[in-house]
Amino acid sequence: MLNKEEVGITVSKKEDFSEWYTQVVLKAQLADYAPVKGLIVLRPDGYAIWESIRTILDEKLKKTGHRNGFLPILIPESLLGKEKSHFAGFNPEVFWVTHSGDTEIGDRLALRPTSETLAYSLYSKWIQSWRDLPLKINFWNTALRAEIKATKPFLRTSEFLWQEGHTVHATQEEAESEVLAILEIYKKTVEEELAIPVITGKKSNKEKFVGAVYTTTMESIMPDGKALQMGTSHFLGQNFSKPFDVKFLDKNNVENYAWQTSWGVSWRLIGATIMVHGDDKGLVLPPRVAPIQIVIVPIYYSDKDAQRVNQKADEVERLLVSKGLRVHVDRRDELTPGFKYNEWELRGVPLRIEIGPKDLDKQKVTVARRHNRQKSDLPFDKIGSEIGTILQQIQDEMFTAAKKMLDDRTVTLTDYSRFKPELEKGHFIKAPWCGNATCEEKIKEETMADIRVIPFGSENSTGKCIYCGQQGSADVIFGRAY
Amino acid sequence: MLNKEEVGITVSKKEDFSEWYTQVVLKAQLADYAPVKGLIVLRPDGYAIWESIRTILDEKLKKTGHRNGFLPILIPESLLGKEKSHFAGFNPEVFWVTHSGDTEIGDRLALRPTSETLAYSLYSKWIQSWRDLPLKINFWNTALRAEIKATKPFLRTSEFLWQEGHTVHATQEEAESEVLAILEIYKKTVEEELAIPVITGKKSNKEKFVGAVYTTTMESIMPDGKALQMGTSHFLGQNFSKPFDVKFLDKNNVENYAWQTSWGVSWRLIGATIMVHGDDKGLVLPPRVAPIQIVIVPIYYSDKDAQRVNQKADEVERLLVSKGLRVHVDRRDELTPGFKYNEWELRGVPLRIEIGPKDLDKQKVTVARRHNRQKSDLPFDKIGSEIGTILQQIQDEMFTAAKKMLDDRTVTLTDYSRFKPELEKGHFIKAPWCGNATCEEKIKEETMADIRVIPFGSENSTGKCIYCGQQGSADVIFGRAY
Repeated sequence: MLNKEEVGITVSKKEDFSEWYTQVVLKAQLADYAPVKGLIVLRPDGYAIWESIRTILDEKLKKTGHRNGFLPILIPESLLGKEKSHFAGFNPEVFWVTHSGDTEIGDRLALRPTSETLAYSLYSKWIQSWRDLPLKINFWNTALRAEIKATKPFLRTSEFLWQEGHTVHATQEEAESEVLAILEIYKKTVEEELAIPVITGKKSNKEKFVGAVYTTTMESIMPDGKALQMGTSHFLGQNFSKPFDVKFLDKNNVENYAWQTSWGVSWRLIGATIMVHGDDKGLVLPPRVAPIQIVIVPIYYSDKDAQRVNQKADEVERLLVSKGLRVHVDRRDELTPGFKYNEWELRGVPLRIEIGPKDLDKQKVTVARRHNRQKSDLPFDKIGSEIGTILQQIQDEMFTAAKKMLDDRTVTLTDYSRFKPELEKGHFIKAPWCGNATCEEKIKEETMADIRVIPFGSENSTGKCIYCGQQGSADVIFGRAY
Repeated sequence: MLNKEEVGITVSKKEDFSEWYTQVVLKAQLADYAPVKGLIVLRPDGYAIWESIRTILDEKLKKTGHRNGFLPILIPESLLGKEKSHFAGFNPEVFWVTHSGDTEIGDRLALRPTSETLAYSLYSKWIQSWRDLPLKINFWNTALRAEIKATKPFLRTSEFLWQEGHTVHATQEEAESEVLAILEIYKKTVEEELAIPVITGKKSNKEKFVGAVYTTTMESIMPDGKALQMGTSHFLGQNFSKPFDVKFLDKNNVENYAWQTSWGVSWRLIGATIMVHGDDKGLVLPPRVAPIQIVIVPIYYSDKDAQRVNQKADEVERLLVSKGLRVHVDRRDELTPGFKYNEWELRGVPLRIEIGPKDLDKQKVTVARRHNRQKSDLPFDKIGSEIGTILQQIQDEMFTAAKKMLDDRTVTLTDYSRFKPELEKGHFIKAPWCGNATCEEKIKEETMADIRVIPFGSENSTGKCIYCGQQGSADVIFGRAY
């Protein structure tokens, strides 16, 4: 058992955001470093958040006709190289298996950086006619892309948990609606469950997925002013169906190449949740994905009190568990209430219920909210009916606060001279852009900002490109990314 | 769309068991071969069975205080080699990553064949005092062990889905009870959910997990007479805690090495389910794990009938879905009922409901059971109340049939001259064994049978060793394995 100083976060979020982040991840016991550089391990609290995200998203995907499958992690080099631009994009990051036991392998095997090539080589066998379409399969697995920069848990790791969906459709229209439907599911999941608002739209051509016709994305801003891509959904057109021969016979018995999509979100969502909501005391988890939603701390200083306080704590636990809530009673005898408060605050539990002898006398408990650190009394007979409402309030207030941050940090500019100064204050910059890659590249060179997203609805700009002054084609969001 | 001959199983289970198995796996669309030898892909129906197993087992593990975590797939060679016998056991099967992009990696990276070494190097950091114990973490992931023999989906593949549990305890007693508690959870899961009876007990010293003090196992017999290890739970003693420095301070502040266990089941359970229950028409799934439990086939030959039949089919679907059952209505207009029956039988759906105009007139549906191919009538007003019972009956009857096979195929012998002939009939042989590795090895050499399990309760044999005639130490089960 560590003492309080070793356990707590020793830097403030504002002063050293990066160090603060690392301390929260490690000290809240979400993750730890693995022995290989670039790799991390998830401890049970970290994995439980992923399980919550997975359960929620999986249900939404199944309701919309998607099913899950399994793909092996090894892809032959020859297959990975079949779509040229795709291969060129991933090649430098690929881990290669060259031996099994002492035997050298002829065609080297890649650890999947993503599974388009493998999935589509199979889809071409599975799909024969229009009756086999749409084919909508999702894969919960990991992908591996060698990171050379310093490891940052959930944000920059060489292996990451994610899901990758791969769908096939008979028409371009259907595939394009799938791309948007998925992005909408992602947005709802992130906003409602993780309480993080996002801006959705298209990527510029330069920033799209290698091999896609276009990429749609949801973007958010972190408290250090950096942009985070939270999930992407790609329209692949026939770019893969042609090299991989994904064809079908239509109702008139005519052979056509199919239309495809792919899309994914990763454990980066956990990183965003930590960054957006955490504070100087540590992690702050939205109730919907918190492994423990409510911690009950019994308080007593005599054996007589211990008995009646513990009895009430057990009773409240049973009541809340029966409501389907995730509850933990901290029964550790050898620790003070204060120590326990600090520990559960560090670990981000959204709601704490304190029960002491005085509370018993007054027939109430004390309820402490993690996100705003406010305490209030709750009479015994209201616990069953009110706690659910309080958790929903917390969830809503966390979203509202995050939305305010995003809005406050998004400035609209028309004057390029203000571009860099605003960026350096940690802002997203919304500005007209002419649609030319040259301007996009120049801005990147001069400011290190790229186009994060061309928001839906802002594709027709009336302004002048912030860089070249030509007629703008869209109002876009610029930002600096991780 | 394939025609009937191409879709159906073309060999009988009895005549060519191996070919029959492969055809069922592929044609029931459970799995397919990946482009790399030894690797397979799971299609949605195959993965859905794994999801059922995972959900059921995960719930049991969580109820007994286990939590899930995540470990990366790459383990440095130096770490994998830290427990010598363990490393020697796995070394020939390990896939090695030597490059990331074009850069050569110094300490080669193994794709995990199992995660003891990685998990315990972390556990040694996470565990300091008795308060951190027991630590009970489970990992749902894949393991990789290069297979040189011909690929057999679910049974012999170079990557397989599994779970690996790794627990740490303060005392030997607690660790040993954990080993048994897990084996009991496994047995219940396999018997109740997959309807496959198993024999539980210990492995002989020769057959134990490399690095364990002892291994407990559950074994079953397949219809071709081969033995299948269905899951193992290992007592590791302090064999890993010493090299990996997994120590804790006890209540008296004295430092101790911890006691450990590890255990796992894999998608091999799906292979067993296919083999034990399938028949010449294809797959037969136990209702508890079937992706579709009930398929409804509307039958009509005129538009007028189509409307009222379909309406009833929809109504029955809604009713059964509201009972929490997994139901599918086969609405494909262009196919005959007979074609549909064959297809759903091939795919193993436990129960089929047929609804035609005559059924409507008689206010009933026809119910066809997959496992015994029996049909009966069920009045409309009994559907809601009876279908659940029928599914449970199917589940029970499937277990009873499988239990009969296991019992029929287990013969007790005292005479070695009958050993090989009985083995060749596809039998397990129960016989006294002196406990000597020499006899065990001789028997293996002469018959290709090994000791599958020393059943619990038969450790004290009164008979004479079937090989050497010395006093037996246990009545053990011999069999030939995959």
